[in-house]
Amino acid sequence: MPLTEQQAAEIAAARAERAETSRPTVPALEALLFQPLPVLDHGFVRVIDYMGDDAAIVQAARVSYGRGTRRVSEDAGLIRYLMRHRHSTPFEMCEIKYHVKLPIFVARQWIRHRTANVNEYSARYSILDREFYLPAPEHLAAQSAMNRQGRGAVLTGDEAAHVLGLLRDDATRSYDHYIEMLNEDEQGAPRDPGRPGLARELARMNLTLNTYTQWYWKVDLHNLLHFLSLRADAHAQYEIRVYAEAMLETVKAWVPIAYKAFLDYRLGAVTLSAQMLTAVRRMAAGEVVTQADSGLNRREWAELMAALARSA
Amino acid sequence: MPLTEQQAAEIAAARAERAETSRPTVPALEALLFQPLPVLDHGFVRVIDYMGDDAAIVQAARVSYGRGTRRVSEDAGLIRYLMRHRHSTPFEMCEIKYHVKLPIFVARQWIRHRTANVNEYSARYSILDREFYLPAPEHLAAQSAMNRQGRGAVLTGDEAAHVLGLLRDDATRSYDHYIEMLNEDEQGAPRDPGRPGLARELARMNLTLNTYTQWYWKVDLHNLLHFLSLRADAHAQYEIRVYAEAMLETVKAWVPIAYKAFLDYRLGAVTLSAQMLTAVRRMAAGEVVTQADSGLNRREWAELMAALARSA
Amino acid sequence: MPLTEQQAAEIAAARAERAETSRPTVPALEALLFQPLPVLDHGFVRVIDYMGDDAAIVQAARVSYGRGTRRVSEDAGLIRYLMRHRHSTPFEMCEIKYHVKLPIFVARQWIRHRTANVNEYSARYSILDREFYLPAPEHLAAQSAMNRQGRGAVLTGDEAAHVLGLLRDDATRSYDHYIEMLNEDEQGAPRDPGRPGLARELARMNLTLNTYTQWYWKVDLHNLLHFLSLRADAHAQYEIRVYAEAMLETVKAWVPIAYKAFLDYRLGAVTLSAQMLTAVRRMAAGEVVTQADSGLNRREWAELMAALARSA
Amino acid sequence: MPLTEQQAAEIAAARAERAETSRPTVPALEALLFQPLPVLDHGFVRVIDYMGDDAAIVQAARVSYGRGTRRVSEDAGLIRYLMRHRHSTPFEMCEIKYHVKLPIFVARQWIRHRTANVNEYSARYSILDREFYLPAPEHLAAQSAMNRQGRGAVLTGDEAAHVLGLLRDDATRSYDHYIEMLNEDEQGAPRDPGRPGLARELARMNLTLNTYTQWYWKVDLHNLLHFLSLRADAHAQYEIRVYAEAMLETVKAWVPIAYKAFLDYRLGAVTLSAQMLTAVRRMAAGEVVTQADSGLNRREWAELMAALARSA
Repeated sequence: MPLTEQQAAEIAAARAERAETSRPTVPALEALLFQPLPVLDHGFVRVIDYMGDDAAIVQAARVSYGRGTRRVSEDAGLIRYLMRHRHSTPFEMCEIKYHVKLPIFVARQWIRHRTANVNEYSARYSILDREFYLPAPEHLAAQSAMNRQGRGAVLTGDEAAHVLGLLRDDATRSYDHYIEMLNEDEQGAPRDPGRPGLARELARMNLTLNTYTQWYWKVDLHNLLHFLSLRADAHAQYEIRVYAEAMLETVKAWVPIAYKAFLDYRLGAVTLSAQMLTAVRRMAAGEVVTQADSGLNRREWAELMAALARSA
Repeated sequence: MPLTEQQAAEIAAARAERAETSRPTVPALEALLFQPLPVLDHGFVRVIDYMGDDAAIVQAARVSYGRGTRRVSEDAGLIRYLMRHRHSTPFEMCEIKYHVKLPIFVARQWIRHRTANVNEYSARYSILDREFYLPAPEHLAAQSAMNRQGRGAVLTGDEAAHVLGLLRDDATRSYDHYIEMLNEDEQGAPRDPGRPGLARELARMNLTLNTYTQWYWKVDLHNLLHFLSLRADAHAQYEIRVYAEAMLETVKAWVPIAYKAFLDYRLGAVTLSAQMLTAVRRMAAGEVVTQADSGLNRREWAELMAALARSA
Repeated sequence: MPLTEQQAAEIAAARAERAETSRPTVPALEALLFQPLPVLDHGFVRVIDYMGDDAAIVQAARVSYGRGTRRVSEDAGLIRYLMRHRHSTPFEMCEIKYHVKLPIFVARQWIRHRTANVNEYSARYSILDREFYLPAPEHLAAQSAMNRQGRGAVLTGDEAAHVLGLLRDDATRSYDHYIEMLNEDEQGAPRDPGRPGLARELARMNLTLNTYTQWYWKVDLHNLLHFLSLRADAHAQYEIRVYAEAMLETVKAWVPIAYKAFLDYRLGAVTLSAQMLTAVRRMAAGEVVTQADSGLNRREWAELMAALARSA
Repeated sequence: MPLTEQQAAEIAAARAERAETSRPTVPALEALLFQPLPVLDHGFVRVIDYMGDDAAIVQAARVSYGRGTRRVSEDAGLIRYLMRHRHSTPFEMCEIKYHVKLPIFVARQWIRHRTANVNEYSARYSILDREFYLPAPEHLAAQSAMNRQGRGAVLTGDEAAHVLGLLRDDATRSYDHYIEMLNEDEQGAPRDPGRPGLARELARMNLTLNTYTQWYWKVDLHNLLHFLSLRADAHAQYEIRVYAEAMLETVKAWVPIAYKAFLDYRLGAVTLSAQMLTAVRRMAAGEVVTQADSGLNRREWAELMAALARSA
């Protein structure tokens, strides 16, 4: 994730600006503010702005005139209660804004979450950077034989080299031709004055889906946590999960009490279906339960065994 | 809008807290922060928190690494361009949070705007204050004879006194009985130990719709301006319009360039239908146009004449 | 829920209209179409229109050209898989529209769910009916002593009669004065020609919160199920839960496979926190676990015991 | 837009299915149901399902028990009134569901409208078809010299042939390598058993942005009209505008009265800013107004002249 000198200078200038405010302020998040957290080979996540803190959740739940906070233990208890019982509106009272650089195919998965505000860098008006995602060798996975949506073993040797070569060559060639069709260089300066350039809104269609784009993404804490519960999950595609993991770090710095409650009641929690619950009741009563007599199908039984940390 | 001593002290304490931040900060809005702006007889609007400023709109539109601003005139030009062409997403990058005290019948109209986050003071758990809206004499309007949704002349004399008396007596009696059924006082202290109190979630149903409630309301700038374009409009009911007007003042302090663009391109603008446009073209070409030959119905013709500042 | 003759005739006429369509059609729901299902003393829920069926969920998940269905068992398996793994978008492809008559205080709780389309009968333009909710004796509950949001024992004898009298008298008097201030009768016919009527948008503020209102409410299946998971829950206030229960019946007629999956994986499911899971693993391994050594607080321990159908 | 035989058969089967319903039914839209309307070289729009009609708008606005309609002229008057005064909620009571096949770069623009339900064909689980968009010669436009977002003259001769060749070759090669990396054919049958295939969720990143994808897209009439007002506009990119135009045809068949009101009050309407309005008032009063003394900048003046059908 190499920044240009100008980008690094702009970030440093933003960090150096200091003003006084009466708004809730979180020193641990101020320390991260504007800094790019590297993700994948050229991507990043940066916190650009935030509103609220743990106390703002408490304040909203109590609709109070002042900060609304009481003893720390009482506030934590309230936040944990709200998380546990899925009272979502107090968490909506905190807001965060990110600047994210990410491959287009990741952006397409991400944008399916509709409850956020987005401003994407426009390839209709502007020229995209010559940057595309190439998986690190340990992430170049084969299709899973078991699971249509999963990954299997990692490709190795010639096979890996061949695939990586195809990805690199196709992305490079497509980008080169993009620039050639535009008849502009990467900074938008005209090249050959003797011929017209293809409209930017058309030329972009030649780029491959691993090309990086960037956007501003603003979301409230409730919807952010919902996004993270899906995308920081082990079933999420690796290339979006690493973004979710970087964002989890920012949540931890921002609202540590809500973060801990989220780990306990959401990320680390397990939902048991009515049938699973029946099986667990029998087990907890000392009965030996098998898949055959549990009423669960094989996949659900495997999930239950995993939840109970038993071998299926 | 009399605050209790404790409320006033909490507000003063919140205002006195100062911290350093690198986030965009707006001194003119900091000056208003937490202060209740009085609305109606017992209501208020207070800004509790905010995110972003005029420059944040520019920054989002340019998806920049730093503040993204250039010369002031260029930034203003961009903001005005975005407003004029209804590019809404950059305005969504600013967020504001209000604490509002308002009559329930106003809250019911307000909540129809679904694109905001809300935490309302819960009469299921808590006891509402003994406060209800009574119109000032100059707002005690008769039903319009012309317009099912409008107000006519103001009631006066005995008629006005009679209506005001009914409103006051019914609200007072309903509130008294609410407290009696709860068997708690307004601070939630038990009263007669010899009998049970009705469940709060039931007792509240006895209150009249002019009883005051309160909520935290958080919204992005785009959706706030949409709300204000409808509710600061002359056709909006007076009792919600005064809230919109108070909020307009906070927008003016917060994002003065966007505010001016909003006045020019939204609040002060007029939309001409295809038929109106045809009539205006003829007029601008020097032709005399009448309702009869304009193709407009009477109501639309009146609207056009109003837009052109002519008498219909 | 007495309908006027005209209303009953309108409903009968709508039911009698028959047309051919190639759209997915559900006979079991057609049988319910337009019929009011009575709720509380004057309320109802009516299905007005619907889009899609169980097969439409399958079709959307497969993005197919035709109906996309295969063997019934395969389709049911897919729907259950989608429900279990919270793939919400295929369920969003079904839509239903209700006409609901409900007390205003219930409407205020209901409207907090923002992901639906609503058209409410407007008391700004129209006159509300003389109908208000009075709890049946068995629902006139005292405030719970344990739980700020709960109900305790039912009021009886003089106490019950007294409370019911207050509710009835205050609602009746407020409505009478509403009509008097309007100077119109309930059908909107003018009364005393010698005096002006108060504007409808003002007079409504005199009504009590148990007055009935009505609205059209349109929602997709995913958001409907989310609403029902919260409002058909034992912790929901009785007066909204009965609406949720009536709507559950319509869901059962409409999409029986999704309905069954919803019961198994949502309504009948239990979420165990990370700490609860640890305790359950120990129990399932045959260990005796107590609250003291479980790491759970008393309330969470009680919830776990309830989930396991044990006494705490 | 060549359908496979199986797809054509599935569509024919869906069209042949007929059932009786009491729901509002629109014969003109039934005639279009399921039929693909061709768009671009391989794309289409198909109406899959719909809910409501013109009368349903009226019914919702009146919150009626039956169909709520009166004389045709009265209903049309109400619909036009609602459209003119931007009462959006009655239009939200109609819903439509499309199946759309479209290039990925168009899908990325489209998805920015967040108020719809979407199920996209998943390249994480499935294999995309070998289909990519190549502009017809008359749409192979150069970048506008005036306007960063616009198109200029059409490329011709060798220049056009060269660009088209690059687009075709890069898309073809990328797709060939996609299949090679997957080690599956286009129907998902394994190819070379001696080597593993790259995970589908990774291989897709090699595709170019003009590759076709497809989705189910469901939206209410209000949000559909908002989408169409932006995307059927002359400033929209050609490649999305043609989809909007095809959908306009379906709206015309579905809700002809709302469609006409939309043309008159939205698509064919013009919004005049406060400053433009001042200028128009002067013109309509017979005054000669120039850009210099209008207070409008050059671009706004040009827009005003265009609105008045005058040369700037």
